Amino acid sequence: MSQSILAAFYRGDHRFSVETVDVRAPGEGEVAVRIAYCGICGTDMHVFHGNMDARVGFERVIGHEMSGVIEAVGAGVEGLTKGQKVVVRPLDHCGECPACTAGHQHICHNLKFLGLDTEGAFQEIWTVPAHTLHILPDDMRLDHAALIEPVAVACHDVRLSGLAKGEDVVVIGGGPIGVLVAAVARAAGGNVLISEVNENRLAIAAKMGFDTINPAKSDLVDSIQKRTGGKGADVVFEVSGTQPGVDAMTAVAAVRARLVMVAIHAQKPQIDLFRFFWRELELKGARVYEPADYEKAIQLVARGEIDAETIITDVSPLTDIQQAFEALDASPTALKSLIKVGA
Amino acid sequence: MSQSILAAFYRGDHRFSVETVDVRAPGEGEVAVRIAYCGICGTDMHVFHGNMDARVGFERVIGHEMSGVIEAVGAGVEGLTKGQKVVVRPLDHCGECPACTAGHQHICHNLKFLGLDTEGAFQEIWTVPAHTLHILPDDMRLDHAALIEPVAVACHDVRLSGLAKGEDVVVIGGGPIGVLVAAVARAAGGNVLISEVNENRLAIAAKMGFDTINPAKSDLVDSIQKRTGGKGADVVFEVSGTQPGVDAMTAVAAVRARLVMVAIHAQKPQIDLFRFFWRELELKGARVYEPADYEKAIQLVARGEIDAETIITDVSPLTDIQQAFEALDASPTALKSLIKVGA
Repeated sequence: MSQSILAAFYRGDHRFSVETVDVRAPGEGEVAVRIAYCGICGTDMHVFHGNMDARVGFERVIGHEMSGVIEAVGAGVEGLTKGQKVVVRPLDHCGECPACTAGHQHICHNLKFLGLDTEGAFQEIWTVPAHTLHILPDDMRLDHAALIEPVAVACHDVRLSGLAKGEDVVVIGGGPIGVLVAAVARAAGGNVLISEVNENRLAIAAKMGFDTINPAKSDLVDSIQKRTGGKGADVVFEVSGTQPGVDAMTAVAAVRARLVMVAIHAQKPQIDLFRFFWRELELKGARVYEPADYEKAIQLVARGEIDAETIITDVSPLTDIQQAFEALDASPTALKSLIKVGA
Repeated sequence: MSQSILAAFYRGDHRFSVETVDVRAPGEGEVAVRIAYCGICGTDMHVFHGNMDARVGFERVIGHEMSGVIEAVGAGVEGLTKGQKVVVRPLDHCGECPACTAGHQHICHNLKFLGLDTEGAFQEIWTVPAHTLHILPDDMRLDHAALIEPVAVACHDVRLSGLAKGEDVVVIGGGPIGVLVAAVARAAGGNVLISEVNENRLAIAAKMGFDTINPAKSDLVDSIQKRTGGKGADVVFEVSGTQPGVDAMTAVAAVRARLVMVAIHAQKPQIDLFRFFWRELELKGARVYEPADYEKAIQLVARGEIDAETIITDVSPLTDIQQAFEALDASPTALKSLIKVGA
């Protein structure tokens, strides 16, 4: 495998450079994956904007929402063979901290996120620890499979919510993760409403068959009250990352509702703790995913429960990654852009 | 039962008047209880300060942390007889709202709290719905039994936390409810630390055998890290009702820690939602109690797991209720004051 491949390096200040590099052959316990597609995550856009330079540096290949095919298997790796379609769960844990010891490897105190803290998938061949791989059905489309990582995020969120069939769900924020959370919640039997202020995103959500509301135009709390006979929402996903989103989260909640904190709040918003007391609300933070969430996400994509054709709004070749990031950044209508890395 | 009794009315602006009134005979489904003791709750002190005038008015007998003996039983009441020692779970639910329908009567949308929304226990005979009674062991001391209501609050908080034996617990705020939460958590097998800034309260907590810390003098987060080998606290009870308490709550928490919101936050504090995401924290609001919490509280008081002699710092006759409220309000060392209502 002493071969040359194309890889896209983040070079700082909204710039990628696509360069030819040598493949890193898989060491013991590693697997080399030929990348088919890799989606642009919101986190990748943060990198593009320069917000994560301290963590990522200027010598890094990023990207993690990928699909691919096993190219080569390192020593000591069992059960994996060249040619299998796979996705990577891009988490590498230390195995020794209190979180790992307690069985919560996905929130390891020293967690490495592949494609941010290590090299990522915007390159033709990506070498990763074998324990990060999940095998796909042979007949799965690899463009659709690039959605599995964000779908696994949504599966984790919905699993932690304990959503039961027939419960009333509000998703606050209808971006890429919001619509996937809504889709997974619907697949679990929830009665889902998406609250979103961006009309383009509302149109996509409606196209996916969801009930929607624009809280800048209609009274969200009043609508939920009417929709639920005065009960409120049993499960609320806060995906907006905004103060109004946090306000709405508690305001729409039924007694003993479960609120899932999906968004990353860099600021500390104010929160209605009186309402937590008064209605015995429950707030759960949810971070990335566990292996079971990946398996669930693979199932949902395989069954066509995720409307990949609507969610994937753009596909560009790796050589056009610079333009793809710029276009996604500027577009009011794009939802998920994929980079087609390999053949 | 056309008899006269003494009753203490809240008349507004830090004033009680003790007056002679006719007993209200128990109607169908009601029981008249001869009150032995009734503790002064923090909520009663809020009434005394005039903060709840709109809800309570100026014609009301308040009080709910009581113990007593059944005096008379109304029509249709079964299984209860004159002479039984009892406490009242002072909640009356509507039975028809979404919370009641879902089995959460204690957070009924239309909940009446006896002794605030109806007459209370600062009177010699209190007539209440039979469904609110819990029978006490014959040999229980009725002064100690007046602690059962606040102990039941603590039992509810600890039950909702899912505390398992051997887990690390931090109680933020060492007032009357804080030390009871700590005592119930200790009885459940938790390794409990109380964080409190008031030195008098710290002394009482230490006398009760708890590890304590004054976060104004020592670094709370650092202490918890050392105490738990870098893991953090598995369960945190926020009983302070302050912004520093809310900050500490998230800062000391282990991955997947359960945080229980016991305090009533009238303001909306800022909260570190990033930490919720990062460590997958869980926040649970806890309000009053359910029947099982009362039964547990009765057990704990009966077994001597609650250090009633240390917690009860004052006992005054009903005729001195005005002075008792004034003294408690002014005292830096008092924890729980009881009014001795009957013989």
